[in-house]
Amino acid sequence: MRASRYLIATQKETPADAEIISHQLMLRAGMIRKLAAGLYTWLPMGLRTLRKVERIVREEMDKSGAQEVLMPAVQPAELWEESGRWTQYGGELLRMNDRHGREFCFGPTHEEVITDLIRNELSSYKQLPANFYQIQTKFRDERRPRFGVMRAREFIMKDAYSFHLNGESLNETYDVMHRTYCAIFDRLGLDYRPVQADSGAIGGNASHEFHVLASSGEDDIAFSTESDYAANIEKAEALAPAGDRPAPSEALTEVSTPDQRTIDAISEFLGIDATRTVKTLMVKAEADEGEEAGLVALILRGDHTLNEIKAENLAGVAEPLTMATDEEIEKAAGCKPGSIGPVNLNVPIIVDRSAAHLADFVCGANKDDFHLTGVNWERDVPLTRVEDLRNVVEGDASPDGKGTLEIRRGIEVGHIFKLGNKYSQAMNATVLDENGKNAIMEMGCYGIGVSRIVAASIEQNHDDKGIIWPDAIAPFEVSIVTLNGHKSPAVAEAAEKLYEQLRQAGYDVLLDDRNERPGVKFADMELIGIPHRFVVSDRGLKAGTLEYKGRRDADKQDIPVEEALSFLIKTSPRKGL
Amino acid sequence: MRASRYLIATQKETPADAEIISHQLMLRAGMIRKLAAGLYTWLPMGLRTLRKVERIVREEMDKSGAQEVLMPAVQPAELWEESGRWTQYGGELLRMNDRHGREFCFGPTHEEVITDLIRNELSSYKQLPANFYQIQTKFRDERRPRFGVMRAREFIMKDAYSFHLNGESLNETYDVMHRTYCAIFDRLGLDYRPVQADSGAIGGNASHEFHVLASSGEDDIAFSTESDYAANIEKAEALAPAGDRPAPSEALTEVSTPDQRTIDAISEFLGIDATRTVKTLMVKAEADEGEEAGLVALILRGDHTLNEIKAENLAGVAEPLTMATDEEIEKAAGCKPGSIGPVNLNVPIIVDRSAAHLADFVCGANKDDFHLTGVNWERDVPLTRVEDLRNVVEGDASPDGKGTLEIRRGIEVGHIFKLGNKYSQAMNATVLDENGKNAIMEMGCYGIGVSRIVAASIEQNHDDKGIIWPDAIAPFEVSIVTLNGHKSPAVAEAAEKLYEQLRQAGYDVLLDDRNERPGVKFADMELIGIPHRFVVSDRGLKAGTLEYKGRRDADKQDIPVEEALSFLIKTSPRKGL
Repeated sequence: MRASRYLIATQKETPADAEIISHQLMLRAGMIRKLAAGLYTWLPMGLRTLRKVERIVREEMDKSGAQEVLMPAVQPAELWEESGRWTQYGGELLRMNDRHGREFCFGPTHEEVITDLIRNELSSYKQLPANFYQIQTKFRDERRPRFGVMRAREFIMKDAYSFHLNGESLNETYDVMHRTYCAIFDRLGLDYRPVQADSGAIGGNASHEFHVLASSGEDDIAFSTESDYAANIEKAEALAPAGDRPAPSEALTEVSTPDQRTIDAISEFLGIDATRTVKTLMVKAEADEGEEAGLVALILRGDHTLNEIKAENLAGVAEPLTMATDEEIEKAAGCKPGSIGPVNLNVPIIVDRSAAHLADFVCGANKDDFHLTGVNWERDVPLTRVEDLRNVVEGDASPDGKGTLEIRRGIEVGHIFKLGNKYSQAMNATVLDENGKNAIMEMGCYGIGVSRIVAASIEQNHDDKGIIWPDAIAPFEVSIVTLNGHKSPAVAEAAEKLYEQLRQAGYDVLLDDRNERPGVKFADMELIGIPHRFVVSDRGLKAGTLEYKGRRDADKQDIPVEEALSFLIKTSPRKGL
Repeated sequence: MRASRYLIATQKETPADAEIISHQLMLRAGMIRKLAAGLYTWLPMGLRTLRKVERIVREEMDKSGAQEVLMPAVQPAELWEESGRWTQYGGELLRMNDRHGREFCFGPTHEEVITDLIRNELSSYKQLPANFYQIQTKFRDERRPRFGVMRAREFIMKDAYSFHLNGESLNETYDVMHRTYCAIFDRLGLDYRPVQADSGAIGGNASHEFHVLASSGEDDIAFSTESDYAANIEKAEALAPAGDRPAPSEALTEVSTPDQRTIDAISEFLGIDATRTVKTLMVKAEADEGEEAGLVALILRGDHTLNEIKAENLAGVAEPLTMATDEEIEKAAGCKPGSIGPVNLNVPIIVDRSAAHLADFVCGANKDDFHLTGVNWERDVPLTRVEDLRNVVEGDASPDGKGTLEIRRGIEVGHIFKLGNKYSQAMNATVLDENGKNAIMEMGCYGIGVSRIVAASIEQNHDDKGIIWPDAIAPFEVSIVTLNGHKSPAVAEAAEKLYEQLRQAGYDVLLDDRNERPGVKFADMELIGIPHRFVVSDRGLKAGTLEYKGRRDADKQDIPVEEALSFLIKTSPRKGL
């Protein structure tokens, strides 16, 4: 491509409303433009990268045996009513009425449509397993779209849905998809981790997220220092501390703690470490039908934080997790929230594993401005129920018993689920099994945020000059910058010749033949993030050389003109060459 | 691809609600499935063809110098208000509100979005001309969606928009697009015609439609027998008959014609040819602001039909064309509609060129149940205004003076427009010209119905056994059918070998390894329309041969096993081989 005939829409200024680096750089490099909140146009430069991501995803999905389909973006409400999600799905579902007043939505996901298709198309276990995918525009009406294409309302997803006679077959395809996702993210040149995840609102019973590691990520990921173990912090198990709980050595004592209402304040006031305290959180209990919900107290070590997902998944705790109001707490405990504790509390308690391992600890006295010290389980409070309630922290033992945990931030770019029969049951999607009997199919679903990957890659690969693309998804792999090309026929000619040579070898080349100052051209090529750059100048040509610089290189180097292609092949090998 | 691991969703029965052959065959061949009215899922078999069409369109657009972008499907109402179309566009615009109550639509076209983008991105005449395209899902909320993907609500379009400093530059790009469209439809293997067209509601001042010729088409296309002239019948000019109008030879006579109210009835009753009569159609006149619209009478030869587009484009005629009611006619002419005529009519008349060429003709007498014979222009009625009002008919002289017209039916698959400054003016899309002054850009737009092409190709290429794909867009180019492959290892092995050989030569091959009767497999491969078929059987292998049959061939032929590839290359050459 010749830059003089191409929309190079670079910008010097960092746009004011772009909070994260990928959003800033995608705007500055002329990859995207905002049409409205959460709606972006992909300019030519950005679309080239997007299409390369798409192609890699498609090739690997095809290789896995999945079959590509294309379902409508607009979906009839009837199907969502069958699955129950028409009412469950909140404001993120963009609903609309057609000219006849019938209800539709712009699909944020396609479980209903594919299940409807497959219940009509497949009739025998012999046709299973089958896995169908599409790469398609979806819409999620985010309350607060932001971060550019990272959390846009309209976005491109690869979504796949597999169908099985039984869980064993589902497990096999799930594993194939796990491997396929690794192959995809490997090819994309990303530093990523597959992590165990909570299945969330889509439902089902096992899932992994694929996270690109980047400090701007919205998720905390816990990894083992010594094994493959990795989990979203939402899901990472906090083991019970090793060994037995120490025996009581102090007497239970009530102390006056005027105006000390936080763990930090109490620790300082009493001169003890926060690890010696417990905090008590009151939440709504699960209510029997027709009855008013009572409260449950969750007890954590003072320095730990509640894992809300773990808590709301517990029997007896209301889902979604609902904190008690100050009034409800006062009514139940007889004191303000800052002074509650488990001793003689008139509410059922659930104790975190680490808190349950404490002896001689400090807690609220259920009396305003008083705490208890020297508190011990069983002696002072019955320990009726111990659960994993907290978020893991760095240094915790890895749940697989190997090494300790580190925590890094990640951007979710893929998610694989075992859905089980959630949709197939609700929509009666059956096949005949070996015995000629109707069997509800098992399902899996597998998503990749295609447009989000573009942003995630930038979060991971950039410097102060701009984007640094992995070769596989760079809009152009090589730039050829002419110096003074408008005045020097030798430069123009040599650049053209190199351009044709590299193109014929299969490279995507951007020939920067614009009549601009060298500094402008260099800055643009760096901002856009093209991995390899050749400079053609009169000075170089006199010596028979071109200047080469890799986007991550500190230094330039001179390459003999006739060796440019072989040098490039060595540096960035062509597939199929 | 192995058929045993692929969704071959063929059906024997012709679906009841599929009216045209392409819709029937796409359902029966397992290419598409209906989700809801006008919404279709593309099954793997259909999507392969769709993607091949897309690829050809993309390659030729790229070759033309157009740059690919991707705009959002969901568009904010504000932009449509700027262009004035938010209120003009009727029920076909699918409108919706987001969670904050803001108005959006699912874009049926993207003039507003691209004009907004370009007015922000381009600032100088030096950046022009520029042409941007996308291949994208669009939505048009048809009142009565039908004919499958031929007239679906959700569909895939290639739309392109070009920007220019002046009309000359627009003309150049328009011509490039005309040639590009010819290249696309040539590569698609379609029998098509570029035809002059009316510009319709999108506006602008010149346009061509590209029609695939097929008897099921919804448009009538007029062609010259002796030149390149081709026009949509909406637009085809009807020339004035050659020579002077004959002189009057009969006297004006009023005749009683009780209950004779149609041209056919009058002709028969009076024993004259319909070509000797005229009919008078009363329509609303263009009203001055604040005044009530009067009527205008349009006079046509009895055997001709009114071209409504020509009529409503005339000065003095209301747009859209509105026929007068019976009451309005009676009030103006003093008789019922069946008896009106131009003589002494108290309403302005516009006479078609052919009607104006008549002498001694018959028309209504403006008196119920009476007609006039021997009527002559000027002698009996002043001939104040003659225009081209009618649809051309077969045998009419071609407007370019070469040959006569034939009329065939066509399916519109492409449309190119010179928009002029309709959108750029309304949305103030300017660049600085050579003199540093703001200049409103000229625009062109260029559409191709990507998903419609798949159906149009079938309308043109099928027989009683099913679809007959052109090689370029066949889902698979070659099928290999095994006979008894599940019992004969020799057959299975030879088929596998051939499969690998053809695949490596770059062919898309479907190996039909299903454990089905030969008749079922043959019928499926013919229904799906795969252009080339090899059969591998024990009998053939004993003789060292495979059976080959082209989809359009009457007879099979035996090909030595080792010559299969070279035979295929001769029959269906590979690009790049």
